[in-house]
Amino acid sequence: MQIDTGLEKLKEIDGRAGEVVHERIQKISPFMADYLVGSFGEICSIPDIDNKTREIAVIGACTALGYAIPQLKVHIHAGLNVGLTRDEIIAIINTMTLYAGFPATLNALYAAEEVFAEEGL
Amino acid sequence: MQIDTGLEKLKEIDGRAGEVVHERIQKISPFMADYLVGSFGEICSIPDIDNKTREIAVIGACTALGYAIPQLKVHIHAGLNVGLTRDEIIAIINTMTLYAGFPATLNALYAAEEVFAEEGL
Amino acid sequence: MQIDTGLEKLKEIDGRAGEVVHERIQKISPFMADYLVGSFGEICSIPDIDNKTREIAVIGACTALGYAIPQLKVHIHAGLNVGLTRDEIIAIINTMTLYAGFPATLNALYAAEEVFAEEGL
Amino acid sequence: MQIDTGLEKLKEIDGRAGEVVHERIQKISPFMADYLVGSFGEICSIPDIDNKTREIAVIGACTALGYAIPQLKVHIHAGLNVGLTRDEIIAIINTMTLYAGFPATLNALYAAEEVFAEEGL
Amino acid sequence: MQIDTGLEKLKEIDGRAGEVVHERIQKISPFMADYLVGSFGEICSIPDIDNKTREIAVIGACTALGYAIPQLKVHIHAGLNVGLTRDEIIAIINTMTLYAGFPATLNALYAAEEVFAEEGL
Amino acid sequence: MQIDTGLEKLKEIDGRAGEVVHERIQKISPFMADYLVGSFGEICSIPDIDNKTREIAVIGACTALGYAIPQLKVHIHAGLNVGLTRDEIIAIINTMTLYAGFPATLNALYAAEEVFAEEGL
Repeated sequence: MQIDTGLEKLKEIDGRAGEVVHERIQKISPFMADYLVGSFGEICSIPDIDNKTREIAVIGACTALGYAIPQLKVHIHAGLNVGLTRDEIIAIINTMTLYAGFPATLNALYAAEEVFAEEGL
Repeated sequence: MQIDTGLEKLKEIDGRAGEVVHERIQKISPFMADYLVGSFGEICSIPDIDNKTREIAVIGACTALGYAIPQLKVHIHAGLNVGLTRDEIIAIINTMTLYAGFPATLNALYAAEEVFAEEGL
Repeated sequence: MQIDTGLEKLKEIDGRAGEVVHERIQKISPFMADYLVGSFGEICSIPDIDNKTREIAVIGACTALGYAIPQLKVHIHAGLNVGLTRDEIIAIINTMTLYAGFPATLNALYAAEEVFAEEGL
Repeated sequence: MQIDTGLEKLKEIDGRAGEVVHERIQKISPFMADYLVGSFGEICSIPDIDNKTREIAVIGACTALGYAIPQLKVHIHAGLNVGLTRDEIIAIINTMTLYAGFPATLNALYAAEEVFAEEGL
Repeated sequence: MQIDTGLEKLKEIDGRAGEVVHERIQKISPFMADYLVGSFGEICSIPDIDNKTREIAVIGACTALGYAIPQLKVHIHAGLNVGLTRDEIIAIINTMTLYAGFPATLNALYAAEEVFAEEGL
Repeated sequence: MQIDTGLEKLKEIDGRAGEVVHERIQKISPFMADYLVGSFGEICSIPDIDNKTREIAVIGACTALGYAIPQLKVHIHAGLNVGLTRDEIIAIINTMTLYAGFPATLNALYAAEEVFAEEGL
């Protein structure tokens, strides 16, 4: 497990939002805290795509899943950290209406609104 | 409804795979054929993201949904059309294990394998 | 369990398509065959909605779920049996683009096309 | 895009609950506010089914999706607006246990309870 | 419908958490309260698996569904009632990362944390 | 990554069905083949639950997801390998009607029927 790489990547990409998740899971299940960070490290070490590409796909997927709102919020923070703009993130979420419908999209926009407010955008 | 823009974008982005869907739906429901193309035209006219960004998000989302295999295949064709490489597409799909688990990811890889074979990759 | 009511309702509403499911499940799990028919009998005995209303909701739901294609096909047969027209069924499925996106809707239209062909519509 | 038709239909069918969504989305993404209303206008202009039939299917689908609770609440208001009774709406939701299980159904009943309380039913 | 068996099983397996659900549903839809308990009675009377096996499968499934958090909490209480330990329940939930990804798993761990706190674990 | 442990566990638990998946993925994405086996090794090394408990939860979850039919089939093979009987597996799948409805359950029973035929059961 790439725990060191994972922790670095978590800090670099997800910033404080990622650390908060890690600390919370650490208290419930230390195994899962390590496994989460190790798996994240593995996936983030795939050389074929950069952080921006990865976050674009993840924001799309977490929107489409419908129930992954807390994780979508972490990855909207992450998207901003790796250089996506507010307008790009909204455009990615809006695109999801075609693939997952309005309920998933609107709930994702409400989550985005909260993150943008937290980030002062 | 942006039907003309939609048809142009469908040809430009999804290529022959998109036209096949449009022709098939035309026979079942002419309303839906127009509505699909019009909606696609609207979403593809959002100026904030380019075709590549959009396809990255859509490949991620269609993988995560699990049941959207025919549409994933259209968008793997589309991804190749707009400049994504085979390795980038595989990396996007592989990233989804973190967000949607192995069943969704493996089924998407099987679909990708078929598309790459069709494209001679 | 309302097994007798269920069997009657299954014949009345789902017709031959329902009996085929029942016979197939009977061979895999006799418990499930009875439980399926009994539960169907209970739900179909709710006096507040008629068969048509029930099938409208079920066709919407099986479309939106995305993976329930074999069951959607049974209920398109059922919808026709209780008086829905081909055009009404297509309109119900098309409505689902707003709530579940195009992949779920298009896959449902493909299923509907098969059922209409089987029914000679 | 049928924005004028959409706004009329939104007022007629979803009433105040629909306007609240539109106003909220307007602030996050003006594109999405227009696109939502335009798409809604297109789908509500399908002549083959009436408002009541459409809301029956949408209440079924939003129940089955499991995560579409805010949208289910809007459409329970809408169902009441177009003439569905409290008992009919509960029967539609209860039918979903067969297709999506008890978790989706019970969470939908909790949402219905809130809407009925808001409407004084 | 096995309502008496169901009520006994509900008390035995789900304890107070199950009764609270039953009482709440009783007020919204007496039909559903009976149907829920009767169906639960039927499924819990399958002789081939014991309560522990059933709860293991249900905790896995409610985690994987992503949106079934209130029901997951009832079944974590139930799991503890039928002899699963805190560590076993966490291990079952953690296993779900492979099949449903981290969002579903992390949200389930947050729910488990709340239940363990309520149970003083 | 616990690749050696993972390969051993894959052979021990999933048998030939697991090796077939591994070989197929190896050809599409060597990264994913390693990552799959490594992650499987990590999760199977959690000491708190045994193979049987894990497979019970996985069969429940793959049934409930609805779209994970190929993976469900691998895990029905795995369940038989670790000592679950045909009747126990059917009972686990049947239990899912309560949590994910009949479409997911019936499609899982059809998959189980195929696996039992392959295994001569």
